[in-house]
Amino acid sequence: MTELTHLNTRGEAHIVDVGAKERTHRIAIAEGQIHMAADTLAKLRAGDLRKGDALGTARVAGIMAAKRTWELVPLCHPIALTHIDVELSLQEDPPAVRCQARTETVERTGVEMEAMTAVQIALLTIYDMCKGLDRGMIIGEVQLLHKSGGRSGTWERPTAPG
Amino acid sequence: MTELTHLNTRGEAHIVDVGAKERTHRIAIAEGQIHMAADTLAKLRAGDLRKGDALGTARVAGIMAAKRTWELVPLCHPIALTHIDVELSLQEDPPAVRCQARTETVERTGVEMEAMTAVQIALLTIYDMCKGLDRGMIIGEVQLLHKSGGRSGTWERPTAPG
Amino acid sequence: MTELTHLNTRGEAHIVDVGAKERTHRIAIAEGQIHMAADTLAKLRAGDLRKGDALGTARVAGIMAAKRTWELVPLCHPIALTHIDVELSLQEDPPAVRCQARTETVERTGVEMEAMTAVQIALLTIYDMCKGLDRGMIIGEVQLLHKSGGRSGTWERPTAPG
Amino acid sequence: MTELTHLNTRGEAHIVDVGAKERTHRIAIAEGQIHMAADTLAKLRAGDLRKGDALGTARVAGIMAAKRTWELVPLCHPIALTHIDVELSLQEDPPAVRCQARTETVERTGVEMEAMTAVQIALLTIYDMCKGLDRGMIIGEVQLLHKSGGRSGTWERPTAPG
Amino acid sequence: MTELTHLNTRGEAHIVDVGAKERTHRIAIAEGQIHMAADTLAKLRAGDLRKGDALGTARVAGIMAAKRTWELVPLCHPIALTHIDVELSLQEDPPAVRCQARTETVERTGVEMEAMTAVQIALLTIYDMCKGLDRGMIIGEVQLLHKSGGRSGTWERPTAPG
Amino acid sequence: MTELTHLNTRGEAHIVDVGAKERTHRIAIAEGQIHMAADTLAKLRAGDLRKGDALGTARVAGIMAAKRTWELVPLCHPIALTHIDVELSLQEDPPAVRCQARTETVERTGVEMEAMTAVQIALLTIYDMCKGLDRGMIIGEVQLLHKSGGRSGTWERPTAPG
Repeated sequence: MTELTHLNTRGEAHIVDVGAKERTHRIAIAEGQIHMAADTLAKLRAGDLRKGDALGTARVAGIMAAKRTWELVPLCHPIALTHIDVELSLQEDPPAVRCQARTETVERTGVEMEAMTAVQIALLTIYDMCKGLDRGMIIGEVQLLHKSGGRSGTWERPTAPG
Repeated sequence: MTELTHLNTRGEAHIVDVGAKERTHRIAIAEGQIHMAADTLAKLRAGDLRKGDALGTARVAGIMAAKRTWELVPLCHPIALTHIDVELSLQEDPPAVRCQARTETVERTGVEMEAMTAVQIALLTIYDMCKGLDRGMIIGEVQLLHKSGGRSGTWERPTAPG
Repeated sequence: MTELTHLNTRGEAHIVDVGAKERTHRIAIAEGQIHMAADTLAKLRAGDLRKGDALGTARVAGIMAAKRTWELVPLCHPIALTHIDVELSLQEDPPAVRCQARTETVERTGVEMEAMTAVQIALLTIYDMCKGLDRGMIIGEVQLLHKSGGRSGTWERPTAPG
Repeated sequence: MTELTHLNTRGEAHIVDVGAKERTHRIAIAEGQIHMAADTLAKLRAGDLRKGDALGTARVAGIMAAKRTWELVPLCHPIALTHIDVELSLQEDPPAVRCQARTETVERTGVEMEAMTAVQIALLTIYDMCKGLDRGMIIGEVQLLHKSGGRSGTWERPTAPG
Repeated sequence: MTELTHLNTRGEAHIVDVGAKERTHRIAIAEGQIHMAADTLAKLRAGDLRKGDALGTARVAGIMAAKRTWELVPLCHPIALTHIDVELSLQEDPPAVRCQARTETVERTGVEMEAMTAVQIALLTIYDMCKGLDRGMIIGEVQLLHKSGGRSGTWERPTAPG
Repeated sequence: MTELTHLNTRGEAHIVDVGAKERTHRIAIAEGQIHMAADTLAKLRAGDLRKGDALGTARVAGIMAAKRTWELVPLCHPIALTHIDVELSLQEDPPAVRCQARTETVERTGVEMEAMTAVQIALLTIYDMCKGLDRGMIIGEVQLLHKSGGRSGTWERPTAPG
């Protein structure tokens, strides 16, 4: 028998029964980066200066995607998020855009996937905006930093991410 | 004036005009990995053995997400993909699941974002299935390997990815 | 610092934290109109007579859009509506179709946006059906009439709308 | 006056007010079949053997569709399912694929539509995979087997389905 | 090797490559029925009389679902339909609602799935409206009647459906 | 018989057959306004100053909604837009935010609905951001300014909008 909770006793994908779990306050924080050439970063910064739409568009994309996580990830429960915050910052050395997302709910299951999805789609949006300049950009270090709430309690990533 | 094509002459986000571009055959290939503990990989492999639903679910998630890329990435054009293939493989050393996605269309704009999105959502789905065992998994090296077709021609990633 | 709650302390868009708010019964009523030529209205009325599908389609469109408000309006919380009612009526002088929508929930945040969205999409659907006859139609006076429930209590539009 | 609860006092479609109903544990089980030529069934079985993707894809399709029932069926309430399980089995005589879906929630309204939708879309997915071999397949006997929870209590289909 | 085109050479689900196929005019017609108690049918008819919203809502649901088929059925190509028509009729003996849907496109792949999906969701919507009266309703005989266009040419169901 | 093209010969809603129409370059421009108290406008301007996220979020919402018009408006054809531009400007006297949207495609049917939808959802997003300050805001004058391309040729709104 499998130890993957997302497979049922027949070994088939299912959505885990959380009906007996309590609604509690749950928080997740995830982060990730997109690495790019220094020149690409400079142009992204310049493009963002006038109206803020380069980073702003990625931020909105991350927020909207977090709400739709359950439509994208097949075995995720539908969740009504009570808070979403997506932060993007330009990093000089090495040149990259870093994204951190925080999601919260008061539900029967955690919001780690929602935070991870927000980071992924926000970084994809940066890729989309800059790909005409630099197709070699690499998205990486997408990871959970923190989760709290629910039966399994609090989890913190052991070593501080770079 | 900005060099980001996704910002218009006022510096604001817009969807680039591709009406004058020709419909041509376009291909993109992207890849990425999710790194996990060796024990997590072993359990994923064992869980997948019975019905194939562990990797199969991630494959379907990637395929379905590729079709919805334009709903997720704000400045992407809607595109009718003519082919999607998502391949997932277990890697032993270091332990990871590797995903490669190929997308094709006959349209006025490329399908790089669709291939990248397929990889991202397939890997997120693996994360979802294994997170009860291992919250420390890291998604990385999500990158374009190849694109061809369209005015900008063929692009290949210079150095072979790990 | 901004007074717009939808911007965080960094001045960036976020989804406001409502985790600490109570679930209470909330109601919103919104309305709007689409103005058209008298002849267009006559043909809309005639077309609706046989099966009721002209107004019926707009009604269903409004109902379905209300449920998806959070997918469309980036900073709206996902909400599970417990009641939606959309009413459309033909007005003779001046010629117009008037829409009124009522939405309800038992949640941590209000349903004004859901009522406004129902009105907007129902009126757009009327525009779509009649645009072959009359491209000059104008949608207007889309406004909240009433909201109740939640911390900010009841609000009524001061002057009765036309 | 109509006895259809989904029509309001004016005879118009609306989403029934469930705000005063209690959140209770609700379960629904539905089933259905797709009938096909014996040769088609044999090829489906053979195709499924290698990776499990034939039945696995239909299973995931049913699960994902169940979550989106309220987007598809106009007068359904949005519901956050707490459990979804979709089972597909090959039947020899007569040749068919049978699907059974179970959905659960802790909400103000039942989940029959979600179980029925899961069955319908899973069977459609089988149709899609096999239609190159056999366009004559017929989907039938899609029906509710059981529902429990809520004011109307438990309902069981009187005669055992085949 | 499998004979299911929706599995690739590795036996895994993929979206078949249709890039080399020509855009041609394609048509599909599908039908199905929902069987119900005579009394339920009488009440459905009565409820529909005032505004037409009982059948009208199901018709709109079928139309809207047809457009979203590729979001629901994992291995379907995204298709821009050029025509959708959904017809619902009340049948007395045995008591049932019959649905027939016609879909058309000018694309590289057929629209059978779109016609089947329209029928399925329209019938589900009837189920939803009547389930308060009659949980025992059964959806059946959902089948393709006709398809034309494309490399495989015209297909007609051999025997006339009841 | 009806003169509404969106009703078929039976008087029922359908999606008009455009299969025989040619793919031509089509453009639509629409506009609308949201009227608000002068103080609300001042706070919106102030909130937008830091990062541009107040207007930027509405712009992105309008762009994303335009792409999904066919999901919202039941009888709209699915269309692949080739260009979307949404412009928002603050108006002092009377205090309002004005939105203008331009949509383009190379398809068999026009893009008026897409431009109108972009305007509606962008203005709704402004309403959402400011509703904590001012629930009395009114959305109005949502109208088509221009359309060109296709069999019916060019249409311009006769009198210049305010």
